[in-house]
Parts: sequence; structure tokens; C-alpha cells
Amino acid sequence: MTTIVPSPGINRRTLVSTLAVLPVLSGTFFSTAAQAQTATSDPLPSWNDGATKQSIVNFVTAVTRDGAPDFVAVPQRIATFDNDGTLWCEHPMYVQFAFALDRVKAMAPLHPDWNQKQPFKAVLDGDMKALAKLGERGVAELIMVTHAGMTSDEFSKIVVDWLGSARDPRFKRPYTELVYQPMLELLAYLRANGFKTYIVSGGGIEFMRPWSERVYGVPPEQVVGSSIKTRFETRQGRPELFRLPEVNFVDDKAGKPVGINQFIGRRPIAAFGNSDGDLEMLQWTTMSGGVRFGLLVHHSDADREYAYDRNTPFGRLDKALDAAALNKWTVVDMKNDWKRVFSFA
Amino acid sequence: MTTIVPSPGINRRTLVSTLAVLPVLSGTFFSTAAQAQTATSDPLPSWNDGATKQSIVNFVTAVTRDGAPDFVAVPQRIATFDNDGTLWCEHPMYVQFAFALDRVKAMAPLHPDWNQKQPFKAVLDGDMKALAKLGERGVAELIMVTHAGMTSDEFSKIVVDWLGSARDPRFKRPYTELVYQPMLELLAYLRANGFKTYIVSGGGIEFMRPWSERVYGVPPEQVVGSSIKTRFETRQGRPELFRLPEVNFVDDKAGKPVGINQFIGRRPIAAFGNSDGDLEMLQWTTMSGGVRFGLLVHHSDADREYAYDRNTPFGRLDKALDAAALNKWTVVDMKNDWKRVFSFA
Repeated sequence: MTTIVPSPGINRRTLVSTLAVLPVLSGTFFSTAAQAQTATSDPLPSWNDGATKQSIVNFVTAVTRDGAPDFVAVPQRIATFDNDGTLWCEHPMYVQFAFALDRVKAMAPLHPDWNQKQPFKAVLDGDMKALAKLGERGVAELIMVTHAGMTSDEFSKIVVDWLGSARDPRFKRPYTELVYQPMLELLAYLRANGFKTYIVSGGGIEFMRPWSERVYGVPPEQVVGSSIKTRFETRQGRPELFRLPEVNFVDDKAGKPVGINQFIGRRPIAAFGNSDGDLEMLQWTTMSGGVRFGLLVHHSDADREYAYDRNTPFGRLDKALDAAALNKWTVVDMKNDWKRVFSFA
Repeated sequence: MTTIVPSPGINRRTLVSTLAVLPVLSGTFFSTAAQAQTATSDPLPSWNDGATKQSIVNFVTAVTRDGAPDFVAVPQRIATFDNDGTLWCEHPMYVQFAFALDRVKAMAPLHPDWNQKQPFKAVLDGDMKALAKLGERGVAELIMVTHAGMTSDEFSKIVVDWLGSARDPRFKRPYTELVYQPMLELLAYLRANGFKTYIVSGGGIEFMRPWSERVYGVPPEQVVGSSIKTRFETRQGRPELFRLPEVNFVDDKAGKPVGINQFIGRRPIAAFGNSDGDLEMLQWTTMSGGVRFGLLVHHSDADREYAYDRNTPFGRLDKALDAAALNKWTVVDMKNDWKRVFSFA
């Protein structure tokens, strides 16, 4: 596993607190691994049979069988999913960070001074080591410069255009194809059982909304994420929302239950994550009485995807892995529990 | 019309910026005027025939007729409704402010010093004139003391309990019965035509969510409002969200488009309000190309409800009334357009 993103000094928190976003959705975009193929008999065909898969089916059966002791009414069937590392690949760097780096390059011709000015120079030189040395502040500056200063509609278009042309360095495919086929099936399976599926991500809300419906079947109003502030203004008779270089909300760690409560106003009954950033969301979801479900995706498959947990600069799964044992959360062993990782494989 | 709320110095903004809230929903509560009775033929039986009613029907027909030039796909059919003065009565004071005053009285036995200390003394003495003199700061303090310092779940229960016993001073009925029957029908009519109906209110989001589904058919996840900050904390093994005495978001005026974008991530195609606090929401909704709909409830009925517009301390309809003429928004003349105001009348 190559970690392109500078590790020391640039942790999950830094990225997250600056990977802030929010646009308005329009229509259908690029090609995608989109809808899960629900087999007639097995709703989770990309999951190997075993305890992991069984725990999912058992939970769904328990809360959906009318009259059963653990039955949960449809409006309360809220399931929340982290995005990076849970629904799509987060290595070798967060997709949104790759977006920021590419944006710097795209914007550079309008900023000739960037050739001599950090943190831009490091990006333009492709010098990730120099970028790492600049630490959190450098990253924050990159994010703000590339994510603010336009309207929400404009930003949405920039994201969609970028996703249409950008390719993952290892798999040489659009990032939107690097979504996990088993998780797409899980999303569809839950929805088929009356669940409302939400994304609750540390990533930028306006970075995800333009494509979440197309790729995950999750409409923009069911995406919760980090955000920068916006300002309403009417310019030349057109009301617009302008994106400001100021953090509004960080939807990570203890921020996730806060974001869930703020946006959804209901406590989920199932939550899905892959890192310590999801710990509080899983606690909030599962430690509330009643039959609840928590699941962590453990990246254990260096061949088909990546293998990492306790010692990764981002997507770290450490405290949450201990908590999983304690709280009886399901831990997906990617290597053994997933028949396929990506739809194209 | 008696205005109990102190007018000078305590404007909409002050109240709104402090009427901040957000809990988790549970189940079914108190009796209510709830569901609109959709007549078999006329979906809007409490609306008199005329241009106002016709404008609503024309709009819905235009955007829902498949193949028509102005057709809007179901996922884009977002309608946003202000609450105070648009869906329920906001006179003689905002219901949430009545709640705050009652809370001060309920909490007073635990705070013996309040008998001598403003702004509490004014409330306990029923001296609204003295309260008015204390201005914005006094109101803000009342709101924070009564709305923060508990968990979100606890606050939700407090609100529900209060609504179960509190009565409007003029109509002697629970506040949740002072919802406008024609607006309930309108909500139901839109939903029957594939719209997702949202509340977008300056009021506290956690003040509205515990009863919005029961009263309006609007689930908590479709309520956008002002909020105070919350903090996630695990106490005695229980994860909780604690409500802090600090403003998080003010969902009023230019804050409404910001809130809509943040929570919904789509631009509405129809918006409903009654005051200048709704101006930007209507602009954001209607001035975006395509067939869009804006509506203002004009309180013109002192007999059945209240009559107020340009010179009221809150719920003021002034700039928005001028903008309605300019932008061809529908203005409801409550007196002439509504056959009934409340379901009980």
C-alpha cells in the first residue's frame, strides 16, 4: 500500500475539518457501478456465507418481522453509513483530497504566484514530502482555496466534471467505480426492508451530494457531512449561495452523532463505518436499548483492495476495533467476508 | 389583537436567534387537528374558489403532468413551509416564547434567586413591560436557560409534556390545534402529488420535531430550523447529546436558503411563508428559472384569527409583500380565501 498523502501532521481531523462542502443536485451524470444487483433469492450475493453475513440478515429479520418483539416501525428504520473506506475506497488518499490537488493544478494558470508560494508550489511540483512538512495549515489552505469562492451550483458542477475525468492511480478507473459492491447490495437490501439509508461522512457534504443518488441510491437530502459556511446573496437579480472559506461543521468523531441529530432528528438503529472516526456514531446508534446493529469494515485485503487498521495515517481502525469486541459489533473481514470487492473485478 | 410579547427591542431576529432547539423523536403524542381531510373531489375544501386557490392547482398541475413542458420529476418536488404564522398561529406571541415563559415558572422553585433577578423576576411577576425593557439580552437569557442544560431526549419530552397541558389564551385550546386547516390540506395535496414537504422555520428545530409528524405529517428529518449547539458525551455508559447555551444556526431571513441548502441539498420548487423572514426563501425558490411557486399567508382576519402585516413587532409582512407583487407570488387573503381557519371552528 502506497500512502501518497503526507502522513505526519496531516491526520484525518485536519482533512475532515477542511474537506468541507455543499451544493444543489441536478440530474444524472457519469457511468457508475450504481444499483446493487439484487439476486432473486440472495439479496447479498457478494457476501460469503458466514457469521458476518448472517448477523446482517438476523438483524434485519428481527426488526422487520411484524409482531416480533424487536420489531421497529418503518419511520424509525434509519441506517447511517460512513463514506470513505466504508462505501468507497479511501486509499491511497481520500478522493476529496485528490480532488483538491487536481483543482490546484487546474487553477494554477490563473495564479502565477503559486509556482513560488507554498502550499501550492508543493502541489504543483508533486512534492508530497514538502506538502507534509507544511502540516495542517497547508492542507487547510489548499482545501479552502479549492472549495470556496464559488456558488454552490458552480461547485457541484466542478465536482461532477472532475469525477468524470479523474482516475484512481492504481485501478485506473473513475473513483465512482471504486465503491464496494457488497455495500451497494447492503444499502439496497436495507432499503428493500423499509430502511432510509443515510450517508454520514467526515467528507464534504457538497462534495458528495452531486453523485450520491446516482452511485449509492442515496438522495442529497440523505447525505450528512462536513461543510463550510455559505452566504445568500442576490447578484444581478439572481439569488445565489456563495461558498465561504470558513468551516461550518465537522462531521467526524463526536461530530457524527451531533450531525445525525441535527440533520435527521432520529437516532439510527443501524450504523456502518470503518474507522475511529465512526466510533461515536456506532455508540450513539447501538447503546440506546433495543436490538441495534453496528458494523465496521476491516480492510484486510491488500490484494484486492488495501490492508490497514491500527497504524494508518487516516482511516485508522484502532479504538473502534476494541469497542467492536466490547459491544458485539459486526466486523467485516474484507478478505474473507466479501466474494467481490468492486463490481468490475 | 393583544400583543403580549414586548415589542420594542424584541424583534423576530432576537427571538429566532435564541429560539434554538433539536431533539430526537419518538412516537405518538397528544390529540391534534392532524391529517387534512382530503375530500374525494376537492383536495382543498377549506379554500374558497378563486384566483388564490386556482394558482395552487395550476402550479401543481403544471409540474406533475407527465410530458408537459413544465414537468418536474418527483425527487425534485421539494416544497418548504415556514411554521409560525404560516402553518400555525403566531399571535399573541410565538408559541415557543410562551413555552419559555412557562418553563421559567416551572423551573423557578429550583432557583429561589430568580424572584429578585432579571429577566426572571419580570417573567415571574408577569410584568411584560419590565421584560420588554430588558431587551434582546433578557430574552436571550430566558431562551438559553429554558432550552439548554438537558439532553436532546429530555428536551423533547419537556416540549411534548408542555404542549399537552398549555392552552392558547384566546382560543383556550392546545397550540397544536391552532394549525391552519387550509394549510394542512395544502400539505396533504402536495404530498399526494409527489412532493416532499419540509418545514423551514426560524423556530427551534428541536422544539418542532417532537410533534411535526403528528400534527403536520412532516417527519423530523424534514424539519429545518434554528438550533443551539449540542455536545456528544458518554455518561455512565450512556451516549447522550447535551444541549448547550450557545447558538448554532439561525434559520431566518437569509439563513433560510442557507438552511435549505445545508439540510436538503436541493432547491425547492415551491415555498410558503407569511413574513419578511421568508423573503429570501421565496426568492431562492422562485427566482431560479422554470415554473416555481411562492405563496404568502396574509393575516387579514381579525375576527377568526388576527390581522397584521406591515407594523407588527413579529411576523412582519412588509418587504415580502412588495416582493410578492413584483414576483407574482400568490398572496392568501385569509379572510376571503379561507373558508375555515382552524379545524375546530
